[in-house]
Amino acid sequence: MRALVFDGKLALRDIDKPIPKSGEALIRVTLAGICGTDMEILKGYSAFRGVLGHEFVGKVVECADSAWLGERVVGEINIACGECPWCLRGLGRHCPHRTVMGIVSRAGCFAEYVALPVRNLHRVPAGIPDEAAVFVEPLAAAAEILEQIRLEPGTGVVVVGDGRLGLLVAQVLKSAGAQVIIAGKHGWKLDLARPWGVRVMTDSKSELPPASVPVVVEATGSPCGLEEAFRLVEPRGTVVMKSTYHAPAPFDATKLVVDEITLLGSRCGNFSAALELLQRGRISVQPLLSRVFPLEQGLEAFEYAERSDCLKVCLANALS
Amino acid sequence: MRALVFDGKLALRDIDKPIPKSGEALIRVTLAGICGTDMEILKGYSAFRGVLGHEFVGKVVECADSAWLGERVVGEINIACGECPWCLRGLGRHCPHRTVMGIVSRAGCFAEYVALPVRNLHRVPAGIPDEAAVFVEPLAAAAEILEQIRLEPGTGVVVVGDGRLGLLVAQVLKSAGAQVIIAGKHGWKLDLARPWGVRVMTDSKSELPPASVPVVVEATGSPCGLEEAFRLVEPRGTVVMKSTYHAPAPFDATKLVVDEITLLGSRCGNFSAALELLQRGRISVQPLLSRVFPLEQGLEAFEYAERSDCLKVCLANALS
Repeated sequence: MRALVFDGKLALRDIDKPIPKSGEALIRVTLAGICGTDMEILKGYSAFRGVLGHEFVGKVVECADSAWLGERVVGEINIACGECPWCLRGLGRHCPHRTVMGIVSRAGCFAEYVALPVRNLHRVPAGIPDEAAVFVEPLAAAAEILEQIRLEPGTGVVVVGDGRLGLLVAQVLKSAGAQVIIAGKHGWKLDLARPWGVRVMTDSKSELPPASVPVVVEATGSPCGLEEAFRLVEPRGTVVMKSTYHAPAPFDATKLVVDEITLLGSRCGNFSAALELLQRGRISVQPLLSRVFPLEQGLEAFEYAERSDCLKVCLANALS
Repeated sequence: MRALVFDGKLALRDIDKPIPKSGEALIRVTLAGICGTDMEILKGYSAFRGVLGHEFVGKVVECADSAWLGERVVGEINIACGECPWCLRGLGRHCPHRTVMGIVSRAGCFAEYVALPVRNLHRVPAGIPDEAAVFVEPLAAAAEILEQIRLEPGTGVVVVGDGRLGLLVAQVLKSAGAQVIIAGKHGWKLDLARPWGVRVMTDSKSELPPASVPVVVEATGSPCGLEEAFRLVEPRGTVVMKSTYHAPAPFDATKLVVDEITLLGSRCGNFSAALELLQRGRISVQPLLSRVFPLEQGLEAFEYAERSDCLKVCLANALS
């Protein structure tokens, strides 16, 4: 099958179709999304080698359990052991023995087919088109914040960063009742947030005073974003960090201690919650889809995704 | 009066006795404690100039409200406006208009007399000797952790750092029902923790596996401590940072995000809680008192406090 493989360099290759193990299903990928983490991997993050990609929607084409055959599915990215204390607590995404599709020791979905354990799969309701379902993974990551912190209605939140993840986070937190400002550099990206009732800002440094915001979400993927988040957060406030950098980040330890700030790391989330948000029409993701490339043009798609004038870039499988 | 003044250099000086303003009391200091923050100020932390010192026990000698005259007191270090939203929420220690005794724009207690607002004062019960009462400020800072995080009985905690603050934190968290390990480099300091039922460790790097501890408290005052705290903390765990550095600290942002770690800054605490711990005999602080110098020998006391073979060093006022 055709696949986008990273072995120190990204290349389109012909490789063997995966053979599903016991408990796994084979999925023909329909649409797969390129994420900031994929681009960090190209710069060295996680030392991954293999088929990239962890955001997809597809159809089950092989499965021992025939109830799954032909189902349209999305798939959780952490492949957990199912037996350790973390798994038993329902936190398989922190299982120490896990592999992670397209990120840690497991082939990803920028390919015609991907294999995943059946327990990682979620059926996609008929009302959700593929172009929305492909956002389930990043939407779940955005909604994870609501599982980690208690957000009273009306709480002031600033999201720093107007990229794909920043826009999803702003929308999810707004739909949960927070008063949300999104701060970024790109007028046209910020404009997408206006219909959601989110306030937009191109220069938070001059528009917002220091130490004035209860919750700040860092979603820029750059240490500058963390610096601005620390400037904005009020005493006893929370900075949520969503981006994975491939370098150590310095932070203002004195402010953290003196102002008793909480710096909270936040990663993958619950797929069921994200599917529910989409099904109830609470979240509008399709405006964030900038362009779909055929898988065959995967290298061009990555080049395009690196540009600052786009949002989500997807790969479509010619077989689907 | 005699006072230890820092103006870029530490010196013993004759200065004017403070004149209490409306709502303030004049206190004759009995005993004052040297803290890590005082030593950081000598290295440039907070750009403070003036009389150093923020830990003391003393006697009220002047006060408009005669009920306070002659009372033995300790005093909260943050002098808040009393009117802003922070003050109205009972969090004057985060008041943006505050001064801080001996740290920010307010004369400290390494002097014969200090003036403080009456609302900052707490009477010291008769059962608590001066040599214990002088620990109320750092003990309150240690107990602050219990106000910030919910610690289930039996929760595993590692305190990294066997200095004054680390030993107080270990003891407070143990008395709150946690399973506490203290990790440090000094056998004789760690030995103090054994009678409290705290497990001690001189080489946590080889004795404890990575990602194995729910709560880690960083109390070394050095970036190496933060690195070891991040190594130890388990997914979804909490690193509490107690030390104020005078330099930015790097941290492992990838681990923070991927493992969804909470990094929590923790500073001053509630004096009433600390006085109650002392009165109920739950906490033993006097073994941490290494040596008392007369105020006149303040410079020698600071030199001595810098040594790694001592814990709390105090200054005694010849007038008391």
